Amino acid sequence: MTQRKTRIGIVAPGRALDQSIAARVTAVAGNSAELVFHPQCFLSHGHFAGPDGARADAFAKFANDPSLDAIWFARGGYGACRLLDLAFERLGEAARAKTYLGYSDTGFLLAQLAKRGIGRVAHGPMPADILREGGEAAVRRAIGFLTGADSEAGVEPSTRAPGKYAAFNISVLASLTGTVHAPDLAGHTLLIEDVGEYHYRLDRLIFILTNSETVRSVVGIRLGRCGPIPVNDVDFGMTEAEIAAYWCQKNGIPYLGRADIGHDAENKIVVFGDRRPSA
Amino acid sequence: MTQRKTRIGIVAPGRALDQSIAARVTAVAGNSAELVFHPQCFLSHGHFAGPDGARADAFAKFANDPSLDAIWFARGGYGACRLLDLAFERLGEAARAKTYLGYSDTGFLLAQLAKRGIGRVAHGPMPADILREGGEAAVRRAIGFLTGADSEAGVEPSTRAPGKYAAFNISVLASLTGTVHAPDLAGHTLLIEDVGEYHYRLDRLIFILTNSETVRSVVGIRLGRCGPIPVNDVDFGMTEAEIAAYWCQKNGIPYLGRADIGHDAENKIVVFGDRRPSA
Repeated sequence: MTQRKTRIGIVAPGRALDQSIAARVTAVAGNSAELVFHPQCFLSHGHFAGPDGARADAFAKFANDPSLDAIWFARGGYGACRLLDLAFERLGEAARAKTYLGYSDTGFLLAQLAKRGIGRVAHGPMPADILREGGEAAVRRAIGFLTGADSEAGVEPSTRAPGKYAAFNISVLASLTGTVHAPDLAGHTLLIEDVGEYHYRLDRLIFILTNSETVRSVVGIRLGRCGPIPVNDVDFGMTEAEIAAYWCQKNGIPYLGRADIGHDAENKIVVFGDRRPSA
Repeated sequence: MTQRKTRIGIVAPGRALDQSIAARVTAVAGNSAELVFHPQCFLSHGHFAGPDGARADAFAKFANDPSLDAIWFARGGYGACRLLDLAFERLGEAARAKTYLGYSDTGFLLAQLAKRGIGRVAHGPMPADILREGGEAAVRRAIGFLTGADSEAGVEPSTRAPGKYAAFNISVLASLTGTVHAPDLAGHTLLIEDVGEYHYRLDRLIFILTNSETVRSVVGIRLGRCGPIPVNDVDFGMTEAEIAAYWCQKNGIPYLGRADIGHDAENKIVVFGDRRPSA
């Protein structure tokens, strides 16, 4: 008996994807999976890949399509939070039987899916990562995970142990903690990463996290990479790891050290909640 | 009977003040008030005007000094949130009899003072504003307010009507909403402003505000100026006023139009809570 090829639907909840990226990622996938790029990925509307309604419709349509096994978010770049009120009420049974993969700005959607218990939710590389140096490996890691062919190799090592996990971009999680869309992180080990924020901003963001009830319910925090940190006019005086350790200590949250995630080609996969056996 | 001169204590909860600024502001004050710069203003410790403990001590000492009528925060620039756990438990009766004035990053402290019902709290110009073009007028406005000599002229016009008001930097309030330090804004008209944020960041920040229970309890929002907005690689497609109106409408919060506050010399004063008669 031959199993049919994994069908992966791709939508862009934030910024648009270039057609050339779709072509390159399709070439990398080869025969290992069928990639279905929703035409919405290539729309343009100001900052976004189409108007809010078009992005929400594409996401809901693909999520509800029983012929698709997974939803792979195309890229981040801001815009997913605008779909929180527009898409989730429409998700049905087929949406529950899927895997969802993305990171960065798409964390707004991962949080909402996990909060509603819809599907298997994972934080990891996206198609647009092909543009990074060594990005092909990131894309292969994602496809290996989504097809189940290589589902363990790409998983962030510290999250292979039994337990509940969640991973977020620091700015995205700090945004969510203030809102009615805040995730439920009780009992989770939380992995966080960011990109391009000044040290003083990282300090403020981790102040937010560690002073929120949302994050105070975790069993511990691991810090991923924080990408290139812009140089300030005066040296902040603490590294990002010292900042994380400081705020964790101050707020009684165990700081567990570093994690292998970030806005780079090395970005490993973190499966949300209790890990389920791979397909 | 001659009333004694108003004594204004100045501390720097975030970044350090230059001695030359103190001299210029003292010259502007002339005989209208006695300005007392705490030596902590001129300390330097990495990003900050001295270590967290030194900044907290200076603030608490001056707040508790009965010979001072007001605390004027020297400047913003990040750091006030680090004092939230270090200073407020120590504030006594003398702290309650004072006026507190600042904006931007010092909003973390204004929020906490207002939340605890300590003193008369106001959002308005700081000593470092003397560096702005036309900044002398901003400093005169602040001193006129603090001495009671000119307390109405400098007040933001829309807040002169009876009611409860609060004003915040958007980034600061968006930080607070996620935390245990969130202010109580129920029944307030909220005035917000920011500086130097990309349109997409303003959109995300106002998403946070309008999706928070904290801000959903206000009676309406007025948008101050958002300073120079950096140019993005693609035009966002909405102005800051359109962004504010969009999120307010979506979340059932009355959008009341513009406010005369911002990171500039025109920045008017907003007194928190129920306005009290001037001295």
